[in-house]
Amino acid sequence: MTAVQALAEHIAEYNDLLNTMNILRWDMRTKMPPGGANTRGMQLATLTRHAKRHFVSDKTAKLLDAAESETALVDADPYAARAIAQTRAAYELQKRIPAALVGKLAELGPASEAAWASAKAASDFATFQPYLEQMLALNIQLADAIGFSDQPFDALVQQFEPGMTAARLGALFGELRAGLLTLLARITAKDEPLPRDLWAQEYALGAQRQLCHEFAALIGFDYARGRLDSAPHPFEVSFTREDVRITTRYDLHYLPMSLFAALHEAGHGLYEQNVSPRLTRSALTTDFIGQYAVGGTSYGAHEFSSRLWENQIGRSREFWALHFGRLRRAFPAQLKGIDAALFHRAVNRARPSLIRVEADEVTYNLHIMLRAEIEMALLDQSLAVADLPEAWNAKMQDYLDLTPPDDARGALQDVHWSAGTFANFPCYTIGNLMAAQVFAAAHTAMPDLPNSLARGEYGELRDWLTREIYQHGRAYSSDELLTRISGESLSTAPLLRYLESKYSALYGLN
Amino acid sequence: MTAVQALAEHIAEYNDLLNTMNILRWDMRTKMPPGGANTRGMQLATLTRHAKRHFVSDKTAKLLDAAESETALVDADPYAARAIAQTRAAYELQKRIPAALVGKLAELGPASEAAWASAKAASDFATFQPYLEQMLALNIQLADAIGFSDQPFDALVQQFEPGMTAARLGALFGELRAGLLTLLARITAKDEPLPRDLWAQEYALGAQRQLCHEFAALIGFDYARGRLDSAPHPFEVSFTREDVRITTRYDLHYLPMSLFAALHEAGHGLYEQNVSPRLTRSALTTDFIGQYAVGGTSYGAHEFSSRLWENQIGRSREFWALHFGRLRRAFPAQLKGIDAALFHRAVNRARPSLIRVEADEVTYNLHIMLRAEIEMALLDQSLAVADLPEAWNAKMQDYLDLTPPDDARGALQDVHWSAGTFANFPCYTIGNLMAAQVFAAAHTAMPDLPNSLARGEYGELRDWLTREIYQHGRAYSSDELLTRISGESLSTAPLLRYLESKYSALYGLN
Repeated sequence: MTAVQALAEHIAEYNDLLNTMNILRWDMRTKMPPGGANTRGMQLATLTRHAKRHFVSDKTAKLLDAAESETALVDADPYAARAIAQTRAAYELQKRIPAALVGKLAELGPASEAAWASAKAASDFATFQPYLEQMLALNIQLADAIGFSDQPFDALVQQFEPGMTAARLGALFGELRAGLLTLLARITAKDEPLPRDLWAQEYALGAQRQLCHEFAALIGFDYARGRLDSAPHPFEVSFTREDVRITTRYDLHYLPMSLFAALHEAGHGLYEQNVSPRLTRSALTTDFIGQYAVGGTSYGAHEFSSRLWENQIGRSREFWALHFGRLRRAFPAQLKGIDAALFHRAVNRARPSLIRVEADEVTYNLHIMLRAEIEMALLDQSLAVADLPEAWNAKMQDYLDLTPPDDARGALQDVHWSAGTFANFPCYTIGNLMAAQVFAAAHTAMPDLPNSLARGEYGELRDWLTREIYQHGRAYSSDELLTRISGESLSTAPLLRYLESKYSALYGLN
Repeated sequence: MTAVQALAEHIAEYNDLLNTMNILRWDMRTKMPPGGANTRGMQLATLTRHAKRHFVSDKTAKLLDAAESETALVDADPYAARAIAQTRAAYELQKRIPAALVGKLAELGPASEAAWASAKAASDFATFQPYLEQMLALNIQLADAIGFSDQPFDALVQQFEPGMTAARLGALFGELRAGLLTLLARITAKDEPLPRDLWAQEYALGAQRQLCHEFAALIGFDYARGRLDSAPHPFEVSFTREDVRITTRYDLHYLPMSLFAALHEAGHGLYEQNVSPRLTRSALTTDFIGQYAVGGTSYGAHEFSSRLWENQIGRSREFWALHFGRLRRAFPAQLKGIDAALFHRAVNRARPSLIRVEADEVTYNLHIMLRAEIEMALLDQSLAVADLPEAWNAKMQDYLDLTPPDDARGALQDVHWSAGTFANFPCYTIGNLMAAQVFAAAHTAMPDLPNSLARGEYGELRDWLTREIYQHGRAYSSDELLTRISGESLSTAPLLRYLESKYSALYGLN
């Protein structure tokens, strides 16, 4: 066995442990009876310790040294070279993070999340404030341990989006904000209520389930290597490319909830299912290379796939012109008198709103910018936790001309910070930018794409995405991938062009 | 922290790893898409290695020494004393088994099981023979590593039934065989076909599912700490007392399949759900003691609980007198003209048959004896694998006066040996013996028990079983438990008395 192979086998074991934790989390969120909550956290903590001990070890250090020496002499497979470099980077990073700090973060997590949930239910920020203060302090320590030259945010964002910085995000956000606010003003001037409330009626869950399964299959989600279940907060999780689990949420009244969550999570799933078999150790792999950790190349890159299939495909006029009949057959009484065009309008109406997860494609990124700016300020301590609600409300007024009636619909609305996740929000907007940029590049590369999409043939797009992006797993950064297919790194222009074109048609703008 | 507590924490981590493997196995058998099979085995192998490394380690040795010294000075809690002794025994046993042998067994398993499945489908013993020969050779090595004074079977049976020997089983089987064959002859003389074939019609799966959920709840299975799913081979598995999963199998025609499998597995589940909280580390445990590994005290003891709830309760006249109405309401057309008495007769008809898993309470144990005698002979090499089918058929003729028309319905019918499980079959009969012995003791202890059971009040029995058996987990051996409640160790008399009484009433014997 070569040194490169020995390292790959060692990392494959580490990935087995990470995938096992994913199985435990999937079960926890979809199948576990309530009593299981009393032991599942401890099981996960034990696995976390074992995984960390496996990776941050003398064995990893020795195998890395040997693999690096070996590849210095002979040209390594490009995937292998990347896998070694990423393993080295992850090893050095994890070594810098004290085990005691990881333990403190893990310990505080459940109590902090529980405090957030109660505070949100009572819309009482003060009861959550001490937990958020502790969680923030630990994350500032984490940023110090990771290291940064400009500001703490830059350290934490590496966990999700390697190479990204607050400065670069600031520039992207500036362009995007200007474009979005102008577009939003033109839309608002023309916005009118829908002729009737489509979601006052009941949409039976069994039929919704059937439709969600069909829609995920339509875009190519492979049930031989995956499942679709229901979960209160939809998510995708993979236990290797051979077994990818997606979930959606069913609302008896609001039909779009389950449909778009299914398309979104299936979009994540397509990324995982189409990673090259060479990057995953499995019974099917004949020329195993391996890679550090699992899945797509960054959180933002993963989000590109889910957003592209949910929005660019799933919220397009062509999609509903073709598939609205499926909804009408499933719900003939509820959708009587509604046609594809009206349904398309209903699921794309853009207007300022208070809640991020209910926002449309135009306003969504404004919700993200607000959060990113606040977390940068919290981390560099220019904003105190006590002043967070006020800062939130001021920004909401500034961007969307709205003031939350209470903190539940303001600074308390998202779970992320309570769970100790800072510097992750920007990934949603990076995903939106990248989706538009990749979709535009796909059109340039495949002139016939509009016709195949209009016919409901999604294989051409999926195969191109697999070839250009999915198959490479984590081997190339999102900027490298974007530059290869579009000639430039992450940019705001494609998203602004896409929204301009889509909303001009929807609202008759000019 | 005391030395006893430090050991308990270390073993609790080991149990977390074992429970994690159980979660992976449950998922594999109930939810996993087909593609997952390409990686799940590797994930389990990685976990197995990590668990073994955790347990067979210098740390375990040091913690054990310290805990033993500590308890030599002060009186330990009786549970703690047992936990330490069992951990010591398991540590010494596992240290004796070479890692290379465990690896070979694990490696051969899937290929051997696959060869068995094809051989069974084609009823072609010859294609399976080389795999069984290898598997047997490895198990003989395993027996040598474990050690024995009389015969190899005695070493292997310790894995499932500590303290049991071939000699003791031989004596129990001799008494049982004589009693069963006499009873069977009297039954056969009176046996008549049922007035009509109840299972020619279709029983919708949705309604079966509802009934299975109800029946498991009736006997006390707690869905706040468990779930019931479907699986091709029903099983129970626990991830601690707080999260116990049971499964059943649905046959569109044969309604009793799902009902009795659900009662059987719920019976296993009741054992796990009622282990003392002190023996499991959980968020609810205030005075944690811990124990080595998880669940009931032996395989046979676990089987006592499933058999008792399936047979002594679920196949009783009183049970169906009370609950047959539920079936009739669910399936009014299919069960038209059938009453509780006829249904009770139908699910208790006793007669010689070829297949173990379809056998009645009288003939079932004859199937087990046949297998136990064969595996003893294979292990001490007085029987060659090549001669297995012939030996099987001769014993079938001897015990049940039947000759299998092919090996699929003969020596190839069970998966156990192909999977490398030898010396486990007797646990089924030990379970049957113990169920009758415990049930008789319960009647002695609670004179009003027949009345509460006739009213469908199962709480009195369940509470008594919890107090006398379930709560103790692995703290006492099955013989210790039996002696405490019935005044004698495992015995055949209670089962023979129970069957005599039940079948006398059913068949009008005298």
